[in-house]
Amino acid sequence: MKQSQLFTKTKKDISSEITSINAQLLTRAGFIDQLTAGVYTMLPLGLRVLQKVEHIIREEMNAIGGQEILMPTLQPKELWEQTDRWDHIDILFKLTGSGDKEYTLGSTHEEVVTPLLQKFLFSYKDFPTYTYQIQTKFRDEARAKSGLLRGREFRMKDLYSFHTDQADLDTYYVRVTAAYHTIYKRCGLGDKTIKTYASGGAFSKYSHEFQTLSDVGEDHIYVCHPCNVAINKEIIEDLKQTCPECGNTDLEEKQAIEVGNIFKLGTKFTDAFGLTYANKEGKEETALMGCYGIGPSRVIGTIVEVHHDDNGIIWPAAVAPFQVHLISLCRDEDVPTADALYAHLTASAIEVLYDERQDISAGQKFADSDLIGIPIRIVISKRTLEQHTVEIKKRTEEETHIISIDDILTHLGA
Amino acid sequence: MKQSQLFTKTKKDISSEITSINAQLLTRAGFIDQLTAGVYTMLPLGLRVLQKVEHIIREEMNAIGGQEILMPTLQPKELWEQTDRWDHIDILFKLTGSGDKEYTLGSTHEEVVTPLLQKFLFSYKDFPTYTYQIQTKFRDEARAKSGLLRGREFRMKDLYSFHTDQADLDTYYVRVTAAYHTIYKRCGLGDKTIKTYASGGAFSKYSHEFQTLSDVGEDHIYVCHPCNVAINKEIIEDLKQTCPECGNTDLEEKQAIEVGNIFKLGTKFTDAFGLTYANKEGKEETALMGCYGIGPSRVIGTIVEVHHDDNGIIWPAAVAPFQVHLISLCRDEDVPTADALYAHLTASAIEVLYDERQDISAGQKFADSDLIGIPIRIVISKRTLEQHTVEIKKRTEEETHIISIDDILTHLGA
Repeated sequence: MKQSQLFTKTKKDISSEITSINAQLLTRAGFIDQLTAGVYTMLPLGLRVLQKVEHIIREEMNAIGGQEILMPTLQPKELWEQTDRWDHIDILFKLTGSGDKEYTLGSTHEEVVTPLLQKFLFSYKDFPTYTYQIQTKFRDEARAKSGLLRGREFRMKDLYSFHTDQADLDTYYVRVTAAYHTIYKRCGLGDKTIKTYASGGAFSKYSHEFQTLSDVGEDHIYVCHPCNVAINKEIIEDLKQTCPECGNTDLEEKQAIEVGNIFKLGTKFTDAFGLTYANKEGKEETALMGCYGIGPSRVIGTIVEVHHDDNGIIWPAAVAPFQVHLISLCRDEDVPTADALYAHLTASAIEVLYDERQDISAGQKFADSDLIGIPIRIVISKRTLEQHTVEIKKRTEEETHIISIDDILTHLGA
Repeated sequence: MKQSQLFTKTKKDISSEITSINAQLLTRAGFIDQLTAGVYTMLPLGLRVLQKVEHIIREEMNAIGGQEILMPTLQPKELWEQTDRWDHIDILFKLTGSGDKEYTLGSTHEEVVTPLLQKFLFSYKDFPTYTYQIQTKFRDEARAKSGLLRGREFRMKDLYSFHTDQADLDTYYVRVTAAYHTIYKRCGLGDKTIKTYASGGAFSKYSHEFQTLSDVGEDHIYVCHPCNVAINKEIIEDLKQTCPECGNTDLEEKQAIEVGNIFKLGTKFTDAFGLTYANKEGKEETALMGCYGIGPSRVIGTIVEVHHDDNGIIWPAAVAPFQVHLISLCRDEDVPTADALYAHLTASAIEVLYDERQDISAGQKFADSDLIGIPIRIVISKRTLEQHTVEIKKRTEEETHIISIDDILTHLGA
């Protein structure tokens, strides 16, 4: 894409209300725009990142048998009364429509997915079933000051699994855990994201969160380094400050951002709605459920918190809006050569943001490039062209390399 | 995809509340599920169709320079007061969140996109700019009984264009008109969808709708057959029952479904928000806007209304959930041959729904196949295998052909 055609521009000054690093950098670089507290527009660069994160999540959900659907935002009050949650969750947005019909905006979808699957699951032969969606969710957060880390409107992938017995649920829970680790690894958060024991419910001793180590995280966790797991502070006293996997008591307290959670729901929702099936003997039994969430927009905010420097964002390649930032300092008769290089890279299926702006200084272009954070910067100018070369530099490195124009594709591994 | 793994099943009996043909067929075939009046879940088959329709729209919007973004659903009251629309649009869902903050749920996005673009458009050099989104929208319809044709929650593509002068807006409006015709053609609605003159506003004599001829349509239009345009009933008297393009008065009244509309907004919203720019002489001028909508979910409902028979849906190939419905009647030692054919077709990048269910009769499989409406049905059985053949039949035709297994790919044009 030609940068002159991108309607967003980088900004030096942004609202003083925007206090988190992730929102500051994403706003200044033109990825997001805050409409009101906790509510953001995804701009062209930001939507590209979101689509990449969601594509990674979708691939991993499909790989473990997930069937994608899209459930509604408007959820009737009656469903939430049936699970006794209408009056007991304080972050629900509630509204009344025509005919005095009361709704909540989807903050989670157990109240929709359970009666939905009830229409299709009758026999033990219909199990197990896994269904997920990637969708916008809503929470009426009193305090929404952490950028994409805590929004009133945000993106969420929620997977729900349905089983006939505990062993099958337990087995799938382990598969989802592995898929989640793969997702964080692909998004560049693998090294810092730790499976964390958290409080369970009536049907399981623990649930698990995935926590990414970061000093801006709201959560406090206790890391067991040998096991590479952690325990959420909320249950550390119950566990007597001991790792539940190895018995280690030498745990390190860290701050972290919760980027996912998985939960064995047991029959909590299938009981409420009466989701039963006929077992092999023809007897009615109640199905078991698990639920598994990851917020793609929060993942983006977390990536920025973890991967940035004083000059801007440093995107991991798999989620970067473009792979190459081609910066042309060419004038006049050299412009067609730069244009041809852009066309050549694009034709080779490389995603390129091409800064061909004529009225912007080299210094400003480099500053914009660092701020936007595309993994590889290639500079083409009169000076480099005299030697039939370009300058190439990784966003993660200080060092610049001079390479022949003919070697660019090889250098990029394309 | 193996049909045994699809969690949805076809249904004979559905709620008597579901009265429209599109909702009846889409529900019985397992594409959608009604949560409450005007609010639907897209099931796996339905989401595949939705993604195809949205992909077509995205391609055509990108081809006319549209930059995709994603704006929020939660829109602060203050923005709607600034355009004086908070108290004057009766289909707005309204809600109050923490801190007594009042929002409406996005039914349209002029109140968001105009102040957004104001942050990036300063000089005449920043124009024209075109930005769009594909997203869920909300309208508090008192009556929501037409399935996907009139929802309280529905999918919408909305494009907004920003210009410095009327001639530029007029030129782009013509380009969008052409893109819309391409979209309807690709979705299988080209023959029946007619550009229709409708009431304009303060800044243009007319707006235009795209109306698909159908006896279930809520709109009445007057078709000028020589021009292949129409006039909406709401302005037919103003036009003295005359085609504005050729002067023809021999117009035919028809019912139709509005599947898109385009509108020259002029300075209506840029005035309200003060979206001005510096012209070539450095003077401040107010920008001009156009807006252009298509509802993907309504397009799906319209396709079903137009393309069905007594047995079910007849999907146009470009938006079908799968291209081939492979029905195996094989038992025992023939099953691996059917499995191998499924693997072969899938490996050839053909999208196949593979009905390998063992406990379902041939008659039920054929009935399901007609209901679901995949363009090409291939039947493989002990009888066909004895001659190394399969039966192939188009959903649009009665006739069945016997072809060699070796010729399937050629026959499919793959």
